[in-house]
Amino acid sequence: MTSTTQTTSKVMDSIEAHFDDSVARLQAILRVPSISTDPAHVDDVRAAAEWFGREFEHLGFSCEVVDTPGHPMVFAERKAPSDDAPTVLYYGHYDVQPADPLDQWNSPPFDPVIVDDANGGRIVARGAVDDKGQVMTFIEAFRAWIDATGDIPVGVKVMLEGEEESGSESLEGFLDAFKDRLAADVCVVSDTGMWNAETPAITTMLRGMVYLEAEVRGPGHDLHSGMYGGAIANPANVLSRIIGSLHRDDGSVAVPHFYDGVADPPQRILDQWRDLGFDEASFLSSAEISTATGGETGRTILERTWSRPTIDVNGIHGGYTGAGAKTIIPATCSAKISCRLVPGQDPERIEASLKAFIEAAIPEGCSVKFVSHGANPAVVVPADSPWLAAATAGLAEAYDTPAAIIGSGGSIPAVGDIQSKLGIDALLVGFGLDDDRVHSPNEKFDLRCLRGGIRSHAGMIGAFADRPRH
Amino acid sequence: MTSTTQTTSKVMDSIEAHFDDSVARLQAILRVPSISTDPAHVDDVRAAAEWFGREFEHLGFSCEVVDTPGHPMVFAERKAPSDDAPTVLYYGHYDVQPADPLDQWNSPPFDPVIVDDANGGRIVARGAVDDKGQVMTFIEAFRAWIDATGDIPVGVKVMLEGEEESGSESLEGFLDAFKDRLAADVCVVSDTGMWNAETPAITTMLRGMVYLEAEVRGPGHDLHSGMYGGAIANPANVLSRIIGSLHRDDGSVAVPHFYDGVADPPQRILDQWRDLGFDEASFLSSAEISTATGGETGRTILERTWSRPTIDVNGIHGGYTGAGAKTIIPATCSAKISCRLVPGQDPERIEASLKAFIEAAIPEGCSVKFVSHGANPAVVVPADSPWLAAATAGLAEAYDTPAAIIGSGGSIPAVGDIQSKLGIDALLVGFGLDDDRVHSPNEKFDLRCLRGGIRSHAGMIGAFADRPRH
Repeated sequence: MTSTTQTTSKVMDSIEAHFDDSVARLQAILRVPSISTDPAHVDDVRAAAEWFGREFEHLGFSCEVVDTPGHPMVFAERKAPSDDAPTVLYYGHYDVQPADPLDQWNSPPFDPVIVDDANGGRIVARGAVDDKGQVMTFIEAFRAWIDATGDIPVGVKVMLEGEEESGSESLEGFLDAFKDRLAADVCVVSDTGMWNAETPAITTMLRGMVYLEAEVRGPGHDLHSGMYGGAIANPANVLSRIIGSLHRDDGSVAVPHFYDGVADPPQRILDQWRDLGFDEASFLSSAEISTATGGETGRTILERTWSRPTIDVNGIHGGYTGAGAKTIIPATCSAKISCRLVPGQDPERIEASLKAFIEAAIPEGCSVKFVSHGANPAVVVPADSPWLAAATAGLAEAYDTPAAIIGSGGSIPAVGDIQSKLGIDALLVGFGLDDDRVHSPNEKFDLRCLRGGIRSHAGMIGAFADRPRH
Repeated sequence: MTSTTQTTSKVMDSIEAHFDDSVARLQAILRVPSISTDPAHVDDVRAAAEWFGREFEHLGFSCEVVDTPGHPMVFAERKAPSDDAPTVLYYGHYDVQPADPLDQWNSPPFDPVIVDDANGGRIVARGAVDDKGQVMTFIEAFRAWIDATGDIPVGVKVMLEGEEESGSESLEGFLDAFKDRLAADVCVVSDTGMWNAETPAITTMLRGMVYLEAEVRGPGHDLHSGMYGGAIANPANVLSRIIGSLHRDDGSVAVPHFYDGVADPPQRILDQWRDLGFDEASFLSSAEISTATGGETGRTILERTWSRPTIDVNGIHGGYTGAGAKTIIPATCSAKISCRLVPGQDPERIEASLKAFIEAAIPEGCSVKFVSHGANPAVVVPADSPWLAAATAGLAEAYDTPAAIIGSGGSIPAVGDIQSKLGIDALLVGFGLDDDRVHSPNEKFDLRCLRGGIRSHAGMIGAFADRPRH
């Protein structure tokens, strides 16, 4: 035990000694606008993949930037130092969300700046925490182990996706093709949040997603609302009416079969969540809103965001949206609509039910066209996994407060696929905070979280190495 | 009578001899992008006003381009040749609708082109018919009378507005300030349509309008739909639900007090409308739609568009509307919503009822902000006006088919104000066709309608001159 403690201490010292370099490397990759959903940025996405490839080669990994039907996948590998050391597969993504609305950023989204604050500073840029900053936490932990001890005490495989923010269309094919090379004992994913700045967290529930774009078409061109108003179905009114009918007055979803298979979490889990002491005021403050009136009535915020499915409009557009007034009946109106799914819901069936619900409400003379932007199930990580215990022990090397076992309302398509295709548990250990403005203008990552994340991964690597391979 | 016929014939000859010049002048003014609703075009709007001012000066009118709180008003005047000749006030507007969506135009909207077709050609540009082309029909008629006879046999006053497409905010103040100088025996407005290409029309009913922009605000910034979905009210869902609730299942409007004061037209009028032989197939074809499912069930299309009030969304925008998927709860969502009003509805009360209806549906945590883009009542022109008989006689000089007496679903804010403030009848005699794509890409004006409009105004001037001043 003394030897392990001494080793871990040397690794932690290396992290502290080179932390400024870690920050500089994160800034370098944040300068690449790898927006995967926007075809205009296809070269930037590849440039980000290649940047990570070079990082892994510097660290002595073998690495490939693998072409897919969409954006490339980064696959890197470093053999275990001995046959009885386990192998850990790390997953993250190097693509980012679009940066708009650009005028709400205080600094350019791809020109990362360090802003001083009461918490020891933060790095502000698109992707700062989601997910480039989190990917760097484990890469910097690898670097520290090599620097302090000459090696990493476990086998490491890394898979970095370039389509996490745009539906992960190529992931399944990649997992099938690389199944044997991805073989590992456990998977570690860094794309979630801490409980708070002092309390690390391991997320054991994630929502899935169905993302659909619906375009309602009516007349062949925009019409004068005086000459045609009252005669012709207005696609903007039609689509609004359909969206309005997605929910009942009590906030529940009215789409038939939407709740098929949905169950409440066990009372034990609900009790655990209640004991977390959820800070509603801070949650509301992070959203800059005075009260939480979304979703189903009669359930707590944690229940609603962690264990209940939702339907949200992510964008809607139709007709004249410039300055002033224009009196038209628009020819088309379209909305991006996404459902967050919970365990028990089948993504394909939900997508089919939603389409059928919308189609049934389209009046004669109008039509609807759908574009699917992905469908993936929710996941649950077993709370009794021995790797979860090891991760908890590793986090104790970096934080005084024990790790909280929590859920998350977000979706990471890869996790369900990794669990089902590779047959291994996925540990969701991330270092974001609620006020990180993920997917929003002025996204940031606290430097204390970057440092704590690197230290946590270093600690977890030590704890994993202590576990014999099963 | 022989002398009158000979005079009219000389005027008509002048129109034919110089028709190419008339087309060229219309092209010149169509090149000025006088989009009144868009602040970026404020100088273009003024340039258009000044162009018309110069035209009137060339024709020997005294003319002023009058500043208002908004865009300028063009006022031109030419004294009656004798004390017993009546004075006619002409109204039109020189501003135009925005041209977007630009990618749907076959030629640039402000680069007017003559397209050959089976109907003798058409001029394609924003404003071709609404309303620059129609304004030119009476200006060219003035020119032809002067060219053929050395004078115009009636007193002429002209008032050209620059805010018709953006709410006519300055009109009332102008009418008050210029009330005495605008004094006339009758007003002629050219901003409506013919019954069909062979049948001129005098419109005796016009709908009014209330135009409101509603912006729903929720969280202070766009939120991650995973972390907040199910907890926070989504402004796009909220606004869609409100819009969806504006109508009942039978297509009627659900806003309280919306139908207060609304009555069906007298059976005599309804019978007249039925006898017009409305061509539904051609109406639907002009809208490029297969069936007319908008508005209230159990009423004909003419009833719905001429005599029933409506609510239409003219534009809606919120959240991410770029390519691909972005998983946010938008901070705001806004819609441009306009009501077409019929006689009996009070615009101020309708606007207040609509605002109250929307406000009542805003959930806690969200708020709504309104911008008003105008409110004006519907108008009815008395069917027994002697000026209507004179106009009918004048139109018979230009067309073989007698004029139809019709309604219109459109709104011309000026007409109600002119009637109430100046105390004179307004004759709505316009030369548009249903397929003119008014307010849409590829707006056009048939050259046969331009020619017929000029000849009609020339004929009406002759008929008005035959009437003694009352």
